[in-house]
Amino acid sequence: MKRKPFAKMPCPVARSLERVGDWWNILILREAFYGSTRFDQFSDALGIATSTLARRLDALVADGLLERRRYSEHPPRDEYVLTEMGADFRPVMLAIFAWGNRHFAKEGRSVELVDTATGERVEPIVVDSKHKRPITRGSVTVVAGPAASARLKQRFAGRPTL
Amino acid sequence: MKRKPFAKMPCPVARSLERVGDWWNILILREAFYGSTRFDQFSDALGIATSTLARRLDALVADGLLERRRYSEHPPRDEYVLTEMGADFRPVMLAIFAWGNRHFAKEGRSVELVDTATGERVEPIVVDSKHKRPITRGSVTVVAGPAASARLKQRFAGRPTL
Repeated sequence: MKRKPFAKMPCPVARSLERVGDWWNILILREAFYGSTRFDQFSDALGIATSTLARRLDALVADGLLERRRYSEHPPRDEYVLTEMGADFRPVMLAIFAWGNRHFAKEGRSVELVDTATGERVEPIVVDSKHKRPITRGSVTVVAGPAASARLKQRFAGRPTL
Repeated sequence: MKRKPFAKMPCPVARSLERVGDWWNILILREAFYGSTRFDQFSDALGIATSTLARRLDALVADGLLERRRYSEHPPRDEYVLTEMGADFRPVMLAIFAWGNRHFAKEGRSVELVDTATGERVEPIVVDSKHKRPITRGSVTVVAGPAASARLKQRFAGRPTL
């Protein structure tokens, strides 16, 4: 990797990007959410080179997003399942899914989300957990937290919104 | 770019990733949300090589996430502002922000989100737009949409959840 390590930055966005690490990783996680656990399932779904897939799976295990579990001893075979941290990436995946469908499905939607229980179409939106109000332009402000450095405190003194 | 073009895939997640294109782009968009518009502001905030920044800004303009606006004729100077599509990336940014703060701020939070009007701490979550219920494991199912190919219809016949 030629880029500077985002994990060293205090920003939670930068640190998240360091862990997900590569676009392929997000598609691998997508497949894990869709139910893939075995190497061949990821490989078939993604059409990714096996060496690339193996490397990415190792990295996702090392970063704590996937857990490797042996499901066969003879021959030795592992499967990959989402950890709690990996499963908690779901909101990001849903937000990406919704943004893509809103803007990049000009020919119509190829995939959609429906409520598993009722079959109703579901549009994921982001709200604040307490009041369930959509977060829109200007409604939330970024402030320095308890662990902020002096530099960060200065940076967020202008109280930017997100 | 050595990877295969994600934009050719019908999946909205893959198409989104093609547009955002690179982790730097997400950090550039973060700065745009925080209020940066001028080249020097992005450059100062990100500590990114100017050649890299110039290339990324051009790509974000070409992909329709940022708009270039001339703010000075003598000397000629442009600024970069979020388009409607770029501003609509906000939910993804919020979801990444929240995930990072939950998992990668072991020493304490360096930045937090507060309600601009009330100052209350805000935790962004993803819900369905109609009922405002959190989307959790198994609660939404991925189904083939009207534009799905036969292959995609088959793929989602198993009704994976997200």
